[in-house]
Amino acid sequence: MEKLKFKMLYSDLKSDLVAIEKELKYALDSRSPLLEEASLHLLLAGGKRIRPVFVLLAAKFGHYSLEQMKNIAVPLELIHMASLVHDDVIDDANVRRGRETVKAQWNNRVAMYTGDFMFARALEYMTKISNQKAHEVLAKCMLDICVGEIIQIEDKKRIDQNFRDYLRRIKRKTALLISTSCQIGAVVAGADSKTVHHLKKFGYFVGMSFQITDDLLDFTATEKQLGKPAGSDLLQGNITLPILCLKEDPSYLRDIINVMEGEMNPKEVKNLIDRIRQSEAITHAKQISNLYLEKALQELEYLPDVPAKASLTEIALYIGKRKF
Amino acid sequence: MEKLKFKMLYSDLKSDLVAIEKELKYALDSRSPLLEEASLHLLLAGGKRIRPVFVLLAAKFGHYSLEQMKNIAVPLELIHMASLVHDDVIDDANVRRGRETVKAQWNNRVAMYTGDFMFARALEYMTKISNQKAHEVLAKCMLDICVGEIIQIEDKKRIDQNFRDYLRRIKRKTALLISTSCQIGAVVAGADSKTVHHLKKFGYFVGMSFQITDDLLDFTATEKQLGKPAGSDLLQGNITLPILCLKEDPSYLRDIINVMEGEMNPKEVKNLIDRIRQSEAITHAKQISNLYLEKALQELEYLPDVPAKASLTEIALYIGKRKF
Repeated sequence: MEKLKFKMLYSDLKSDLVAIEKELKYALDSRSPLLEEASLHLLLAGGKRIRPVFVLLAAKFGHYSLEQMKNIAVPLELIHMASLVHDDVIDDANVRRGRETVKAQWNNRVAMYTGDFMFARALEYMTKISNQKAHEVLAKCMLDICVGEIIQIEDKKRIDQNFRDYLRRIKRKTALLISTSCQIGAVVAGADSKTVHHLKKFGYFVGMSFQITDDLLDFTATEKQLGKPAGSDLLQGNITLPILCLKEDPSYLRDIINVMEGEMNPKEVKNLIDRIRQSEAITHAKQISNLYLEKALQELEYLPDVPAKASLTEIALYIGKRKF
Repeated sequence: MEKLKFKMLYSDLKSDLVAIEKELKYALDSRSPLLEEASLHLLLAGGKRIRPVFVLLAAKFGHYSLEQMKNIAVPLELIHMASLVHDDVIDDANVRRGRETVKAQWNNRVAMYTGDFMFARALEYMTKISNQKAHEVLAKCMLDICVGEIIQIEDKKRIDQNFRDYLRRIKRKTALLISTSCQIGAVVAGADSKTVHHLKKFGYFVGMSFQITDDLLDFTATEKQLGKPAGSDLLQGNITLPILCLKEDPSYLRDIINVMEGEMNPKEVKNLIDRIRQSEAITHAKQISNLYLEKALQELEYLPDVPAKASLTEIALYIGKRKF
């Protein structure tokens, strides 16, 4: 339902998004039934296709060509999906819930190679783009994402981290690829450099707001909405913005450490999550997310008045309001 | 010792290979100490750097520029190393030997992201190459390698596979990247299309011979030489050429299935490996490896007489003779 609402935001892109969806399916065609099954499963599981949407909207600020944009939107979505599969590989939560190990191992293996395949397919699409700048931006972006994934492992359970560590991590995890989607879409469509600059910054700010909201919802949304128990991030040792707001408070610090170390029973965990949900930290994190959103909207003011600008505004506002 | 001999084969490339080694080390520089430790560990563990060697030698058939070739040799070696790390992730043998799971999980996770980082860094190097053909060839090659990895999982323990299945698998696993190294080195150096064609085929045939020998040695070399017990491939369910030669023989078939299913005790395993080692299948596989080698040498006959040609011949002959 929520997804539907989001899709209505860009109804003028509808037929182009259908074409991209078709191309994505085509891109996952391979000579291995197993690979196809695994990657189609992922594709059909859906997703908001935010990156393709940003690519297309950004391109509207230049000379828009669907055929050209396919070769950008498809690889960017593939890279996003690939990074999701790789994030799911060796999912601590899975393992901790004590699933059958051999089966988990096998699935992990397939998941890893499915991700590799998607990366490689993304690369193949990109070869059709002759714009050198687009290649450089994307390669740098992918590198940063990878470094970010390792830093996320290093930062796990590290209670002495600060806001800057967190912001840098979510930049790499989310904001960069959205920013890159806006930038490359505009660059390849031949938008002027000022427009490219502001679209890139818009994508960055929207991405930051988006991830902060995601991290918030991990505490405030229901298990049904999230598809996993509330507080999963914390249980896995991922320290997000609400936790950073609370950890200076001695009445929280010990509990935060205990829950990350797995030293709480389910009832204690539930109590802690409830306390966090009702704390000031949630309001505070929400404010920071809104600040990023405002910065995103400010960037749009520098852009020429084309219909895509209204769509970008709507998307930014939607991201600010979403409940899960 | 063996590695030293191999390195002596291309002494005229020595200083260029030192430069590439330096660049590889530089390429693994990142902002994460963990990532750097993991990837440098892999780099310093060594390797024959066969792919860079082939890149450089192939480039000698055109206008050789070390600076240009760095941007090809480095990413190709990075891709090779990345695929090795990913192959090691969720290593069945490791898990079966019952290593501590949490530690193994953590290492696997880091290994996966280290591989991703190396892929991304490879991509970044490739952006410095403006030759469109090189990008297309490499993207196709990476895709085929990924599909091959999944097919290798699908083909595991599948006793009804034939020689064609095996040959297609080792093509993707090994021959393609070596063939691509030769092809891209020559293409970017501006060698003529006939030369490129024969170098590409040379690399393919050498790669096939190389992998068949590898699969042979898994039975005939000692545990010390291999760094793992002899017969590891079979124990993991990977059906290689010697097994394909033997599986029609009823006196082997049942044992082959039993060992793959883990239904043999260590003594029975040892007996089976000993039997295989002394069987005709080893001689037969060796002959097939030699056939590929001959075909590789034939390709060289079409090439102009530059000093690199003699080096390629020596490498091919070395590969034919290697003991581990």
